[in-house]
Amino acid sequence: MPVKVIAPTPSAYPYPLLIKHLLHTPMTRSPDQEIVYRDLRRRTYREFRERIGRLASGLTQIGVEPGDVVAILEWDSDRYHECYFAVPMMGAVMQTVNVSLTPEDIAFTMIDSGATTVLFNADFLPLVEKLAPYLKAVKTWVLMHDRPEPPKTDFPVKAEYEALLSVGSPYFPFPDFDENACATLFHTTGTTGRPKAVHFSHRQIVLHTMAVLVEYGLTPEHGRFHRDDVYMPMTPMFHVHAWGAPYTATLSGCKIVFPGRYSPEIFLKLIEAEKVTWTHGVPTILQMLLSAPGSDKVDLSRLKMVVGGSSLPPSLARAAMARGIDIFGGYGMSETAPMLTGAHIKTKHLGRDVEQELSRRITAGIAAPLVDLRVVDTNMADVPHDGEAVGEIVVRAPWLTMSYLNNPEASEVLWGGGYLHTGDVASIDADGYVRIADRLKDIVKSGGEWISSIALENIIMEKPGVRRAAVVPIEDVKWGERPLALVVLEPGQADKIDADAIRLHVASYVERGLISKIAIPENVRFVTELPLTSVGKVDKKKIRAGNL
Amino acid sequence: MPVKVIAPTPSAYPYPLLIKHLLHTPMTRSPDQEIVYRDLRRRTYREFRERIGRLASGLTQIGVEPGDVVAILEWDSDRYHECYFAVPMMGAVMQTVNVSLTPEDIAFTMIDSGATTVLFNADFLPLVEKLAPYLKAVKTWVLMHDRPEPPKTDFPVKAEYEALLSVGSPYFPFPDFDENACATLFHTTGTTGRPKAVHFSHRQIVLHTMAVLVEYGLTPEHGRFHRDDVYMPMTPMFHVHAWGAPYTATLSGCKIVFPGRYSPEIFLKLIEAEKVTWTHGVPTILQMLLSAPGSDKVDLSRLKMVVGGSSLPPSLARAAMARGIDIFGGYGMSETAPMLTGAHIKTKHLGRDVEQELSRRITAGIAAPLVDLRVVDTNMADVPHDGEAVGEIVVRAPWLTMSYLNNPEASEVLWGGGYLHTGDVASIDADGYVRIADRLKDIVKSGGEWISSIALENIIMEKPGVRRAAVVPIEDVKWGERPLALVVLEPGQADKIDADAIRLHVASYVERGLISKIAIPENVRFVTELPLTSVGKVDKKKIRAGNL
Repeated sequence: MPVKVIAPTPSAYPYPLLIKHLLHTPMTRSPDQEIVYRDLRRRTYREFRERIGRLASGLTQIGVEPGDVVAILEWDSDRYHECYFAVPMMGAVMQTVNVSLTPEDIAFTMIDSGATTVLFNADFLPLVEKLAPYLKAVKTWVLMHDRPEPPKTDFPVKAEYEALLSVGSPYFPFPDFDENACATLFHTTGTTGRPKAVHFSHRQIVLHTMAVLVEYGLTPEHGRFHRDDVYMPMTPMFHVHAWGAPYTATLSGCKIVFPGRYSPEIFLKLIEAEKVTWTHGVPTILQMLLSAPGSDKVDLSRLKMVVGGSSLPPSLARAAMARGIDIFGGYGMSETAPMLTGAHIKTKHLGRDVEQELSRRITAGIAAPLVDLRVVDTNMADVPHDGEAVGEIVVRAPWLTMSYLNNPEASEVLWGGGYLHTGDVASIDADGYVRIADRLKDIVKSGGEWISSIALENIIMEKPGVRRAAVVPIEDVKWGERPLALVVLEPGQADKIDADAIRLHVASYVERGLISKIAIPENVRFVTELPLTSVGKVDKKKIRAGNL
Repeated sequence: MPVKVIAPTPSAYPYPLLIKHLLHTPMTRSPDQEIVYRDLRRRTYREFRERIGRLASGLTQIGVEPGDVVAILEWDSDRYHECYFAVPMMGAVMQTVNVSLTPEDIAFTMIDSGATTVLFNADFLPLVEKLAPYLKAVKTWVLMHDRPEPPKTDFPVKAEYEALLSVGSPYFPFPDFDENACATLFHTTGTTGRPKAVHFSHRQIVLHTMAVLVEYGLTPEHGRFHRDDVYMPMTPMFHVHAWGAPYTATLSGCKIVFPGRYSPEIFLKLIEAEKVTWTHGVPTILQMLLSAPGSDKVDLSRLKMVVGGSSLPPSLARAAMARGIDIFGGYGMSETAPMLTGAHIKTKHLGRDVEQELSRRITAGIAAPLVDLRVVDTNMADVPHDGEAVGEIVVRAPWLTMSYLNNPEASEVLWGGGYLHTGDVASIDADGYVRIADRLKDIVKSGGEWISSIALENIIMEKPGVRRAAVVPIEDVKWGERPLALVVLEPGQADKIDADAIRLHVASYVERGLISKIAIPENVRFVTELPLTSVGKVDKKKIRAGNL
């Protein structure tokens, strides 16, 4: 006998999980709450809601239809926030274009997506002028700017964003449709090969939003998010939904602050002026924030920050905690919407010993609600949950990309065996904490042993005088692979720290049993900076290719 | 152009929203956390998870198949908790039988559901023996008991619960299936007409679970629920999923305490011994808890309690707050899974003035996440959000019953116009707080004006010496309807308070503009107790029918 599927009565509302339904709560609870853009604009949620209607109405008037792809090139702004809702709510697809890619890659992503409408900030006008001849599918260009006058150009702009809103109706009737309709689309940042497009449905975004709020609501104090927090992104909004936070913050009805084009100065200014309590970013952003001129004069002790994108080095986490920041790791990918885990430390692991606590804060954390996370060997068998054994992280959750756009082969590889393969190697302990050892391709396979490039980097960065370190595998006739350590020193340390000093430092960790002897790097190279990807991660692909 | 629906790659896991997926989080986070049954049993979540497998396996061995309805007659126990998961997870339907109904109504609900298997506590053996001849569809009876020996009986029990588990396998493979499969079924308590069955799908229960956790996670402090809370139900588990809390508590991985058969003594004992921090119940239960012998010796100041089912009288809320209980209202129905609202007070309304705060704690509260709640007139137009105008509450949410079982006519009435009609009359203010004025059928329509029976009851209960009050409409030739007030006095007050004293008391509220003059009841009757429904609400149907 099969399961009994419930038959709705004809008049029942089937309630598809659509992004528009995220707005009931803030519009009921906090219509007068503020949404702030730098020191330029303050609007209420009520105005925000009206502008969503106006934007959808205006876009419809210039020919945007359900199913169309609308590409956005914009800094983190209130307008981007409006696009996050209006574009998918009208049934179109929002493409969040990674504006930090090379012009060639940007053009590729916009051709790959099939975008027909582009909303772009005036700062990107030169870029857009350069790309336009190649983007044959684009019919409509919409300009966004904050200047007294629009920039002078012959470029065929169909409309200016604010003019579009002024002719649009706030009462645009957002339709119901299939909850599996595509809402958002963006490209992976291509640490391997050319960018691949992932896409997410309304259902997936609604479920991700709810699960993030459950994850951040269940923790008693540390790392909490609640409706009285003040949220500001420090992850670009083109990057995996700014980790979902614009949706979760909006549902909560909290105060939201958009920093526009990123700089440590504007972050610090807004944190102070708007009393920001909740943010997220990659380690590079956190380092910028802590080391920026004048940073030490800003009170950061109210700040809760989840760090992801790359492993959080203990030295950096320690520096953040010294400033009073409630810092902790999280883990996810472009393919995973992104939340998979959060390092919300168990109460029994909090407060007793700072270093013990820190050692858990810097983990990827524990699988988030509804996430079925496994660490498996090459036969898809679970490795022991002992914090030692490593394997690949594979996952199921209700918000993972169900395919790559236009790439069925890569899609099947991604989902081999019915679990999404993250390509990340990790251990998991009896408490559920996941520790990322490495990207599968960054791990150093040396003489039959695996050396975690992240573990070795973290150890090197523990040495006073070292600012950053990156470890990549290089080929070796005898060992197969050996680690190459690139080291960035603090100013004035160049004549104090040499390669032997680094090796001696690592050796002291070998003696304490914290890393294998074979990890001691014969290859140490000092550099002035590390190459970064478009989203601020250390670009190991570039390092491996020798492009320093 | 239609919306773009995302096509999954063949190997992608579609992740149906099934109840089994609620277990990933607790099994990862707190497998050693305790689940307690009175002072009789303590088990870990790990054991709980194994027993779920064993129960499903055992039920399969005695012939239970997907689609079958399994009826449960049990007190609030760890075993009921196991049924909450195992029965739906195997694809069967769990019927939570309201054991407080009359035997006739219980038989009706079990025939109406089509139950083929019944799990019953030995305490209900006499009832089951009486009903069995009428329950032709039931093939299999399973006995649950906590006694040294099973009760002696000739009744054809197929298996005893613990024996069933001992032969079952903990590794039962729970299948994937349609997320719209029916998971649970139970009957409305029939305040109008005979009981009607509502039913809920796996998808609906998962979404309700997530939304409850978001609702209780977004509030900064008051009324919070988090993973370190200790949960104990004081609403029967047959009653609307015990308000969803067994599912939400389980997902959170918190300590859970089941009180078994209800008594104020066992509640107080467990609150003290197990350090319970989180509970829920109807006003009657709260009153019992506060007035039970020895209650004043138990520290209740750690307790957070949501009160629903009936309006929370200010006098009772005040008494609870005086004991340090974080008390607040919530609103929902059997048809709504049940959460629609929660009286999580806005920060600006907390703490300044106790009576002002209390006046909001006793409201139904504010619409919960994803809930589209409207207060409408008879033309389905929204009434002003001014806290004055009243209309019917109509709702949409992803977890409302999509029909009544075997009752297409009532289903269409319930969903008239595409919104679920609650039959409750309420106002809503600019802050979103919903105040229930009355059930549509309990409101007193007198001379063209509406008198809220709840408002009048609350005013009468403000009078010192009055314990409870109930107001119902009675027919009146001149006015159409007039209020009849039934009043229960505290012991020793009978010769101090008469009908005139009640009228004078109400009149003082008229003078203060808090209620209309026409509400002063000429009809006041003193009674020793009020009739209660099976779930502890005042039974106004019985009062209206003159069955006192």
